[in-house]
Amino acid sequence: MARPDGRAPDQLRPVTITRNWLRHAEGSALIEFGDTRVLCAASVEEGVPRWRRGTGEGWVTAEYAMLPRSTDTRGARESVKGKIGGRTHEISRLVGRSLRAVIDFKAMGENTITLDCDVLQADGGTRTAAITGAYVALVDAMKWLRRQRKLKNNPLTGSVSAISVGIIQGQPRLDLNYLEDSVAQTDMNVVVTGEGAFVEVQGTAESEPFDRAALDRLLDLAVGGCTDLAAMQKKALSG
Amino acid sequence: MARPDGRAPDQLRPVTITRNWLRHAEGSALIEFGDTRVLCAASVEEGVPRWRRGTGEGWVTAEYAMLPRSTDTRGARESVKGKIGGRTHEISRLVGRSLRAVIDFKAMGENTITLDCDVLQADGGTRTAAITGAYVALVDAMKWLRRQRKLKNNPLTGSVSAISVGIIQGQPRLDLNYLEDSVAQTDMNVVVTGEGAFVEVQGTAESEPFDRAALDRLLDLAVGGCTDLAAMQKKALSG
Amino acid sequence: MARPDGRAPDQLRPVTITRNWLRHAEGSALIEFGDTRVLCAASVEEGVPRWRRGTGEGWVTAEYAMLPRSTDTRGARESVKGKIGGRTHEISRLVGRSLRAVIDFKAMGENTITLDCDVLQADGGTRTAAITGAYVALVDAMKWLRRQRKLKNNPLTGSVSAISVGIIQGQPRLDLNYLEDSVAQTDMNVVVTGEGAFVEVQGTAESEPFDRAALDRLLDLAVGGCTDLAAMQKKALSG
Amino acid sequence: MARPDGRAPDQLRPVTITRNWLRHAEGSALIEFGDTRVLCAASVEEGVPRWRRGTGEGWVTAEYAMLPRSTDTRGARESVKGKIGGRTHEISRLVGRSLRAVIDFKAMGENTITLDCDVLQADGGTRTAAITGAYVALVDAMKWLRRQRKLKNNPLTGSVSAISVGIIQGQPRLDLNYLEDSVAQTDMNVVVTGEGAFVEVQGTAESEPFDRAALDRLLDLAVGGCTDLAAMQKKALSG
Amino acid sequence: MARPDGRAPDQLRPVTITRNWLRHAEGSALIEFGDTRVLCAASVEEGVPRWRRGTGEGWVTAEYAMLPRSTDTRGARESVKGKIGGRTHEISRLVGRSLRAVIDFKAMGENTITLDCDVLQADGGTRTAAITGAYVALVDAMKWLRRQRKLKNNPLTGSVSAISVGIIQGQPRLDLNYLEDSVAQTDMNVVVTGEGAFVEVQGTAESEPFDRAALDRLLDLAVGGCTDLAAMQKKALSG
Amino acid sequence: MARPDGRAPDQLRPVTITRNWLRHAEGSALIEFGDTRVLCAASVEEGVPRWRRGTGEGWVTAEYAMLPRSTDTRGARESVKGKIGGRTHEISRLVGRSLRAVIDFKAMGENTITLDCDVLQADGGTRTAAITGAYVALVDAMKWLRRQRKLKNNPLTGSVSAISVGIIQGQPRLDLNYLEDSVAQTDMNVVVTGEGAFVEVQGTAESEPFDRAALDRLLDLAVGGCTDLAAMQKKALSG
Repeated sequence: MARPDGRAPDQLRPVTITRNWLRHAEGSALIEFGDTRVLCAASVEEGVPRWRRGTGEGWVTAEYAMLPRSTDTRGARESVKGKIGGRTHEISRLVGRSLRAVIDFKAMGENTITLDCDVLQADGGTRTAAITGAYVALVDAMKWLRRQRKLKNNPLTGSVSAISVGIIQGQPRLDLNYLEDSVAQTDMNVVVTGEGAFVEVQGTAESEPFDRAALDRLLDLAVGGCTDLAAMQKKALSG
Repeated sequence: MARPDGRAPDQLRPVTITRNWLRHAEGSALIEFGDTRVLCAASVEEGVPRWRRGTGEGWVTAEYAMLPRSTDTRGARESVKGKIGGRTHEISRLVGRSLRAVIDFKAMGENTITLDCDVLQADGGTRTAAITGAYVALVDAMKWLRRQRKLKNNPLTGSVSAISVGIIQGQPRLDLNYLEDSVAQTDMNVVVTGEGAFVEVQGTAESEPFDRAALDRLLDLAVGGCTDLAAMQKKALSG
Repeated sequence: MARPDGRAPDQLRPVTITRNWLRHAEGSALIEFGDTRVLCAASVEEGVPRWRRGTGEGWVTAEYAMLPRSTDTRGARESVKGKIGGRTHEISRLVGRSLRAVIDFKAMGENTITLDCDVLQADGGTRTAAITGAYVALVDAMKWLRRQRKLKNNPLTGSVSAISVGIIQGQPRLDLNYLEDSVAQTDMNVVVTGEGAFVEVQGTAESEPFDRAALDRLLDLAVGGCTDLAAMQKKALSG
Repeated sequence: MARPDGRAPDQLRPVTITRNWLRHAEGSALIEFGDTRVLCAASVEEGVPRWRRGTGEGWVTAEYAMLPRSTDTRGARESVKGKIGGRTHEISRLVGRSLRAVIDFKAMGENTITLDCDVLQADGGTRTAAITGAYVALVDAMKWLRRQRKLKNNPLTGSVSAISVGIIQGQPRLDLNYLEDSVAQTDMNVVVTGEGAFVEVQGTAESEPFDRAALDRLLDLAVGGCTDLAAMQKKALSG
Repeated sequence: MARPDGRAPDQLRPVTITRNWLRHAEGSALIEFGDTRVLCAASVEEGVPRWRRGTGEGWVTAEYAMLPRSTDTRGARESVKGKIGGRTHEISRLVGRSLRAVIDFKAMGENTITLDCDVLQADGGTRTAAITGAYVALVDAMKWLRRQRKLKNNPLTGSVSAISVGIIQGQPRLDLNYLEDSVAQTDMNVVVTGEGAFVEVQGTAESEPFDRAALDRLLDLAVGGCTDLAAMQKKALSG
Repeated sequence: MARPDGRAPDQLRPVTITRNWLRHAEGSALIEFGDTRVLCAASVEEGVPRWRRGTGEGWVTAEYAMLPRSTDTRGARESVKGKIGGRTHEISRLVGRSLRAVIDFKAMGENTITLDCDVLQADGGTRTAAITGAYVALVDAMKWLRRQRKLKNNPLTGSVSAISVGIIQGQPRLDLNYLEDSVAQTDMNVVVTGEGAFVEVQGTAESEPFDRAALDRLLDLAVGGCTDLAAMQKKALSG
């Protein structure tokens, strides 16, 4: 029961993080999990959304999208359809929530950072790559704000990364590619801090309900994967 | 550290399920979790969406929405805004996915059932009430199909219910109302089959990341709550 | 030529008005005309639309909508379609206009009340039930404003209710249900004040033009029906 | 209490009907009620909407719109706003309904005629001018269908025209211009067949409810005005 | 190889400019190039778009649209479709850009003029008729501003007109009608000032690429046509 | 009057074409004109749009878009705004038209190729880079169709590339970057075949009208630039 690309069940795909891929953005990273490629850009804007004005606190939000031909068959553009689909909405919200978990908004002041995560090529795990890459772009945007002397303290209270795990023919596996994802019985996306605590746990029974033992094994795998990703983020940011 | 309504930490709010609240729908239930009231209607339609035609399999989908004044301050109608918000999309998808986990689509034939879950009044836990009530409406819609002699076998492979759990000031609690939900450090929605297996686990760190021990305690609480809900569903359906 | 439910030609269906059906709204009523059930909620908001600012006058507006399965066959949600249909627009405007006919806007000050009329179940006459129920919710919202000491005088200059009338096989009838409505030759909705004056008269020849005598008989019936409805509103509000 | 343009209370504004103003349309008329100018075009299309297919019956529908600078201050285009307003919807529906009242759909066969009524300049009474002019365009479109040998019999069972009436400072007046319309206490649009029967009666209390006597006087005025309009339609069509 | 309407290759269709066709607009013209009829209205509004505020400069913009039955077969309304098509967008932008080329925005002060160009009947060359007619409406709107004493100096630095040219069966022709336009190998729209300089040159190879010699011959034709149009604009404005 | 990046007036920026940048698309290229980066993907689909069915001819279309942070300040997503802007529409149409000029649709059979041109980073000339890169992707998609034995003959009748030219302080320059583009007096985009013939000429006077001599010099520059681009396309495709 070997994996399609020969990996061990607890092995990540090759991960590449190309920091500052974009020239204009205050922070950016092109992140690759195998053939999955997500371009993450952090944009700083003075001010905060209306409902937050006057609180002295900042805001971090995210928008996720897929290029039409990132996938095997071309998908219609959401701009052409005139509306955003449920999946896009759901992932955008997940990415924003995950990053907000490691922010001290008071320390940010009334600034907004928007993380754009655009999937250039998709092969499973786009949302987890997006979260992991967006964190890198976010760190650089925060550094930019400090260089502009707009912040006194570092608003980041930790790091965050994410990985998918799933059960295929009874075997728990780390970092599913598209082929594996489409046949998994159970599929889970886990967002973990650099210190190993959970920010988000989203497990879904795809074909049949799962028990507590399966859940436990998947969480173990995910925490291990995120530990590796945290090290890669650190290395990319130390360059 | 008493709860606002005096409940024990592992106690559900009063739950009421009024079956067949609607005259036209093939199945319906008005479900109440305390002051939260969700009207669930199951609509049967012959045929399936285009991408499923010719497979011989059925389909189950859901749409969740809130009436503008179900909440404390009036929200703008999504029909007037001309688009559906991210939260609505996300919950609609969750309800549909949860119900599909207990369906044998082959046994359904090419029929579609749509579950409309409209929140008439909101006080926390609307998505879990929606799932729990929609299951009741779904059972009646399946019975209707059988009475119409459109099904030979029962497509339902089990029952499903859902509950929210969260940690407030360090204390794990079952079935949060709005007041509790808005101050929870960690918030989790858990969907469980009548046999106690997980269909969906969605945990979110609202203010700070959570550890494995907290996760375990929340899952225990949720499974207990869903056991009670499953009994109430059974009772409502035996009427 | 008996009516499908055995009523006399000039007889209303059983009418029920459940005041304060909602906990959050400043005024609310669940109104039933036979099997037609409309939930009416009044929401008070400080301030008025831009075009009315600085006039010292208030504003009252309404939004009408049907739940997807309020009807015999499920209708697509307008939020999902991304636009509001002509019928919805037309009825929302009618409800707002009808209520504004009994308001002294100067006495309201720059406050806005929005009446949401959501049809939970439809069996003909939903717009007339909406107007009749919305008036009850509006009265309670005005009372709320006075309790908040935001008003000195009562802005209501009278009461308002509405009923449908129509001609079926030559016979004028009061308060048509869906079955009757769909076969009526002429169909009229009449909005009448508590003092018996007309606020709105909308008569439509469905299958063939009508003459002055028919119009007169329908108006007589409608005024009679609204007299009864006004008494029921009064009773509901005196509770 | 003279009228702003010196007319008698029961006098129409000068009416001009320029038949076949357009070269491409199967029927067309530029109609003027004083300074109000509406371009009416009838377009014939083979086939009927999906819900009517296979019935052997035709369909007639209408779309009303205002050019952005038809009015005193420029209005935003509905195409730019991305949605149609309530007033536009309401009038489009009224025009379509009014014309359908004089059609024998069986005689039309499965053909559709769409009446586009575009207001080039507005000075009150645009909806009544639209109905009156659209009838002329419709007659020519029916003739076109007969010349194409697509119809055996004439589907028109009569003629239809419309006029506005209102009460200003207690005086009932025919065919209000914009200035009068904006100060009317009661405003009514009446659609009448060539034989003097009612197709639609829409009366609205603008500032205060009206009684039966006022209603009667307004209906008398309207029937008189439509008698004149019917003669003008006849004359235009005999050219 | 005669032209369908017998014109010489370098001959314009009959051009009519009816100034002040509208009563409400600050400037207006109904312009006809043969059977093409475009109604151009200039609307003055105090203030400028947000991005231009505080610059002391004015703004001129345009919106082009076609009535549904201006063409041979009826086109769906963009307001009903809920979005503006690419062609509409493209022409609106072209008209605005062309007019802005002859404006001194400093002299305009912070005022905005919107040119609405609505095609009542189309027979080729609608965009060039729109530019030519909009200039006339714009001049009158500027005069209106001066009469209102809102301008000290004339912001117009010259005049502007436009014409289409194309190659049909090897022959360069001026001012194509629809029939010619649909078979042209090369199609060009040229916008020229009253002094013969280019404001916009848009040439498109419809069926096969064109060479420099063809381009030169088309430009010669266009400049000749625009010289004639400039004279007609002048005459219309001197009335 | 040196150029900001020290280039000669008739010198292109460094151009890079990375063929097959994407794994799923039937043809793709990442094209760079200096800091401008556009990802071009060709997607083959069986069948053609409805209006072309049964003609035996194929279709080629294009969609252009910019990532939100491709530019100096973040732009709102068109998918979030729910509509496509005029500039996007205009460029999408230009790219499609340019490619269709070198296609023999009969030889394509009823197949559709969609070219997605997504701007990852913008520094002027994005539309010309898009056309130049899209041609490379298109060639590979045609090869893919031939390998699938869906085409007998090569539908490509030539190659096509595009470049911008403009006049800055009186000096004609080739391939403007963003800085130059924003100050140009005249700005022109020219699409040229591999044989040096024109497919599209779009010249715009940005600040003042231009004369024939200026136009001629710009066209000379553009043809020279496109000759170089055609050689680069050839080299990329020979790899």
